[in-house]
Order: sequence, then structure tokens, then C-alpha cells
Amino acid sequence: MNRIEQFRLYRDRMNKRILEQGSHLGIKRVYNLDTNAYRDGALSSQTKELLGLVASMVLRCNDCIDYHLIQCIEAGFTNEELEDAMNVALVVGGTIVIPHLRHAYETIDLLRAERSQQLA
Amino acid sequence: MNRIEQFRLYRDRMNKRILEQGSHLGIKRVYNLDTNAYRDGALSSQTKELLGLVASMVLRCNDCIDYHLIQCIEAGFTNEELEDAMNVALVVGGTIVIPHLRHAYETIDLLRAERSQQLA
Amino acid sequence: MNRIEQFRLYRDRMNKRILEQGSHLGIKRVYNLDTNAYRDGALSSQTKELLGLVASMVLRCNDCIDYHLIQCIEAGFTNEELEDAMNVALVVGGTIVIPHLRHAYETIDLLRAERSQQLA
Amino acid sequence: MNRIEQFRLYRDRMNKRILEQGSHLGIKRVYNLDTNAYRDGALSSQTKELLGLVASMVLRCNDCIDYHLIQCIEAGFTNEELEDAMNVALVVGGTIVIPHLRHAYETIDLLRAERSQQLA
Amino acid sequence: MNRIEQFRLYRDRMNKRILEQGSHLGIKRVYNLDTNAYRDGALSSQTKELLGLVASMVLRCNDCIDYHLIQCIEAGFTNEELEDAMNVALVVGGTIVIPHLRHAYETIDLLRAERSQQLA
Amino acid sequence: MNRIEQFRLYRDRMNKRILEQGSHLGIKRVYNLDTNAYRDGALSSQTKELLGLVASMVLRCNDCIDYHLIQCIEAGFTNEELEDAMNVALVVGGTIVIPHLRHAYETIDLLRAERSQQLA
Repeated sequence: MNRIEQFRLYRDRMNKRILEQGSHLGIKRVYNLDTNAYRDGALSSQTKELLGLVASMVLRCNDCIDYHLIQCIEAGFTNEELEDAMNVALVVGGTIVIPHLRHAYETIDLLRAERSQQLA
Repeated sequence: MNRIEQFRLYRDRMNKRILEQGSHLGIKRVYNLDTNAYRDGALSSQTKELLGLVASMVLRCNDCIDYHLIQCIEAGFTNEELEDAMNVALVVGGTIVIPHLRHAYETIDLLRAERSQQLA
Repeated sequence: MNRIEQFRLYRDRMNKRILEQGSHLGIKRVYNLDTNAYRDGALSSQTKELLGLVASMVLRCNDCIDYHLIQCIEAGFTNEELEDAMNVALVVGGTIVIPHLRHAYETIDLLRAERSQQLA
Repeated sequence: MNRIEQFRLYRDRMNKRILEQGSHLGIKRVYNLDTNAYRDGALSSQTKELLGLVASMVLRCNDCIDYHLIQCIEAGFTNEELEDAMNVALVVGGTIVIPHLRHAYETIDLLRAERSQQLA
Repeated sequence: MNRIEQFRLYRDRMNKRILEQGSHLGIKRVYNLDTNAYRDGALSSQTKELLGLVASMVLRCNDCIDYHLIQCIEAGFTNEELEDAMNVALVVGGTIVIPHLRHAYETIDLLRAERSQQLA
Repeated sequence: MNRIEQFRLYRDRMNKRILEQGSHLGIKRVYNLDTNAYRDGALSSQTKELLGLVASMVLRCNDCIDYHLIQCIEAGFTNEELEDAMNVALVVGGTIVIPHLRHAYETIDLLRAERSQQLA
């Protein structure tokens, strides 16, 4: 299993644990709000996934970056578009973002390889 | 003078001071990189201004928010679109962003009033 | 008007603006979540205001500090208890928190003076 | 060894290294201040561990979260109380805190399992 | 009074308030640690003030920047040296630091003008 | 392979990937700016590596800490000097920095052991 597959499994398992019956109502609502924030609205879902990616990069959260890259690639963004968005995050957030940029490029390559395999 | 006008004057005056002849080459280059990051590329300049706005909100910088709101309104975004982007920033960044949301709404109202006056 | 009175007026005015009819549903829901997070639950409302204060201090947001100090003093905490909580925030967050500690002490003094006047 | 046991071993080993004879006096004093900040004072030690947990979550530090969860469970907090505190951290800090929430729930489950085994 | 003079007065007044007789022992000790951290040690006091300046800039705290600029200029750094240090902060911290860079340049100019007047 | 060797390999591999032919010009320029920021200028390269270390610690980035420790030890700093710099970072950034301090001490020990082996 590569790290994206591990991330998906861990994320699913723990989200189920957090949202299980009887769990904290406030926490459940934050999860709902999060889902709704990226739905089509005045802006398209696609654009909002890109906003989520840049927010995740400047706040320097690898798991959040991975999640939004999965969504952005699902939404059809090209590598060039993703790099152009990540450049904004890098310029705003500075070189402290570079370790997360390395992580993000690796994630993109893993996700593209996964897609190639699925098509093959 | 309202606070947007004061911000513009202060920003221009200090940027001139920072970039004056003989000033630090590295700092000048950061300013150049910043300008270029928002130019049309794989993504449109318009989309990148929205990315800059969301990055500024989650990093909680009022001056940066004001700057990107000026650019976003110049780029033609409606209030509904700006609010949809700011909602992503609020959900990702949490209620600690709320004071900056209040600031941003006031800035939007000031900028719209300014535009109405210019048209009148 | 002292700065606490100005803060209350500005906060009320802008919150009304943000939550006015037809405003963004996601943003409204964040406000609701925020209100509910500090209600009595497994922990008392009083304890949760103290958590909000410490979160606001380590994240270094003066408006959030002022808001939670208003609530904490309303909830009956003594200055000694508030200082003991702020000490945790200062130790966790480091000396970068000191300017916000100065702000917080001034806010506490303003709020205590206000209460004395109301009793007189 | 699960990750809590690894964390405890690594933490102990490196703290000994940092505090060994002849080490930096300022750093030693920060460690002392940290220990003292959570002792009974105007607030109880128990309440202050909860403050430490929330501060660690909004600042997004997994090791700090683990440490304070160990202390909070030692201090007798129930899962419902911990979730209510973590909800405050999540609402203040936003969805960028979610990966740390997943980590925290897993830590709580590991610590509860450890306690069950010790009782068995 | 310019803003540096106001900052000095406010800082002195509130620090006295925070450290007054009977105040929180933990908070007093943080102040002591802070003072000691910048004393001559393995590194010179001068070098450590520069470290404090860069830490303040990447953490984006104007009051802390002002304090360390006062100390750095007292310690004899030239504008070219301060700009070279601030460039490191700007590159590491990104363009979100720019509003604080504008503030810092203005502070430097105010402090140099003050020194010229004292010599005249 | 210890974690420093793994870090070097991963860093080199991914930086090559990010900077490969046809890659994003803005991102390349950030890398250039970063390299130049630490070159001799008004301040020595040595001093600027120390600034980079402290900035990395208060921003709590382990990879950045490792990178600057490699450079600082290359530049000839003693452990006492590095500890004196890290103490400034710890005092400014607070106990939330402690997990990164543990990481940094371990990195220093790994780098010193590597040097001893090279001399042997």
C-alpha cells in the first residue's frame, strides 16, 4: 500500500469512529459544514476545491493537502493548473511551505499513476 | 479619508520606501515574484486573486485581505462569489477568522460605495 | 467611549451585516456552531469559555481575547483564575503572546471598572 | 509497541538528553515553567490540563495533544468531556484541525485500551 | 507623540501592571526567561537580538518587531544588516510578511530620526 | 539509513522533480531566492543560517530545522551556540516548540556522529 492508500483507509476508519452513533453533535456539524462548503454555490465546486488546496498549503497540513489534491484531480485540474495554484500558496506562505510542496508533488504523481493503472 | 484610502496611501508610500534605489535585491525580487504569481498563467489572474484572498483570510492578515478584495472586485467578482470564497476560508480556518470576516465585509461595503460614487 | 465599548458596537454592527437576510448559509451556520460550542454540555459553559480564552491567546487574536474575557468575567471567574489560565497560554504560546497579554490585562481592568460603575 | 508507547520512550529519552548535566540553563527553566504551569493554583491542575489540550489542538501539535490527553485521562476526564473540549478547539481552529482530531480520537482509544488491560 | 513613543509608554505601563506585587509567579518567570534569553551567552546579545527580530517577523507580531528593532539599533546594526535579516524572514515567511515589513521599515526610519534629533 | 540520510535523499529527489525542465517558473524563482537569501551579504552566510534555524523552529517545521542544522554545523557552529539560538526560539515560540526541540537535538547528535565517522 502506498501512502495515499494508507491515508484513505486511516481517514475513513477514524472519521467513522468520530461520527459513530452517539458522538458529539457539534463535531458532526463541523463535518457537515465542511462537506457543504465545497458544494456548487455562487462559485463552482471545482474552484472551491482549489481554494481548499491553497488554504491547506499555507496552513501547512499534509493530510489536508492530500485530501484536496484527490478532489482537485477528480475535478479535472491539470498538473499545470495545480502548480499555478501551489505557486500562489508558496509565494504567500514562503519557503516554510517547501516541504509541503515536495509532499504535494509526490501525492500528485501517486494519484496520476493510480489513474493510469485504472485506465490500463 | 476612510480606512481603504489610508491603506492605499500608506501601502504606496512604504512600498516606495522599501523598493527605493539601492534597496535590498532579495526583497525587490520577492515583490516581483508576488506580482507575477497573480498574472494569467495556467490559471486565470481572476482565479488566482481569489486564491490570494482565501490564503490571506486563513493566515489572518487584514492588510492582505484588503489588498486582495480590491483586486477581486476589480476582477469582477460579485459579493455572492466573494462570500462563497470567504466561507471556505472560515470553515477551514475556524471562528478565529471571524474578526477578519467582519473586517472583510466592511472593506467590501467601502469598495462598493466607492464604485457607486465613481459612477454617479 | 473606551475600546471595549467600541469593540461591542463594531462587533454587533458587523455581525448583523454578515447575518442579514439572504446572507451566506454556510457562514450563518458557523456562527450557530460557535454559539453552541460554549453552551453547557459534558463540560460547563463556564469551563468552555476559559478554553475559548486560552485558544484565543495562543492563536493571538485580540478581538477573540476580548470577547472571551467579557464572557469569562460574566461567568464569574476571578482575576487570579483568569491569570492562571493566561499563564498556561503564555507558557504554551511563548513570549510572542506577551503583547496580547498586555491587551488582555487592560481589557480585564476596563471590564472590572465598568462593573464597579454599574454597581455604584 | 503502539505509537503511544513509542512516544513515551522517545519523549523520555530526548528530554533526558536535553536536560542532561551542563545543558542550557534557559531551556531547563522553560521545562520547569511548563511543569509548574499545570500545578494546582487559582485553577485546578485538572482544568489546566484541559486548557493545555485545547491549546495543543488549535496550534496543531500531535505530540502535545498526546501528552495532554495522557494527563487528562489520568486526571479522570470522561470521553464525553474530552470530546466537548475538542469541539471547542475544532470550532475555534476550523477544519484544518480535523487530522489532529483523528489523531486524538485514536490516542484516546489507545489510552483507554491500555487502562482496561492494566485493570484486567 | 509618534507611534514608537506611544508603544514604549503603553508597554511600560502594562508590564508594570502585569508584574505588580502579588501578580502571577509563572508570568513573572516568563518575563525573566525572556530577559535572560537575549543576554550574552554562547552567542552574543547582539546576534540574539537579530534572532528575536527574525522570529518576530515570521510570527508576524508588530509589537515584537518594534521591540527587537529598538534593541537591534541600540546594538549597533546598520540598516543594510537589518534589511538582510528581514529578507531572510520575508523569504521564509512569504508575502504575508509584507505588511509587517512595511511596519518595520517605518519603525527603523522613526528610530533613526529619533537618534539624529538626540545627537543634534 | 538513519532519518537524516532519508531526508537528504527524499529532499534531493523531490526538488529535482519540482525543478525539472518545463516546471513552473515562479516556483523555480522561489527556490533561487531561497538560495540567495543565505549567501554572504551585509550579514555573513553563517549568521543567516542561524536566522533560518530560529525561523524554522518558531514556525515548527522539522524538515526546515533539519536543513538549517545541516547548514549550521557545516558553517562551524558549536552545540553550545546552537542551543543558545534554539533557546531564543523556545522562549519566543513557547512549549509548543518542545517536540521540535527534541527533534533538533536528535538531528544534531546524528550529524555529529556522522562527522565523527567521516573523520575516523
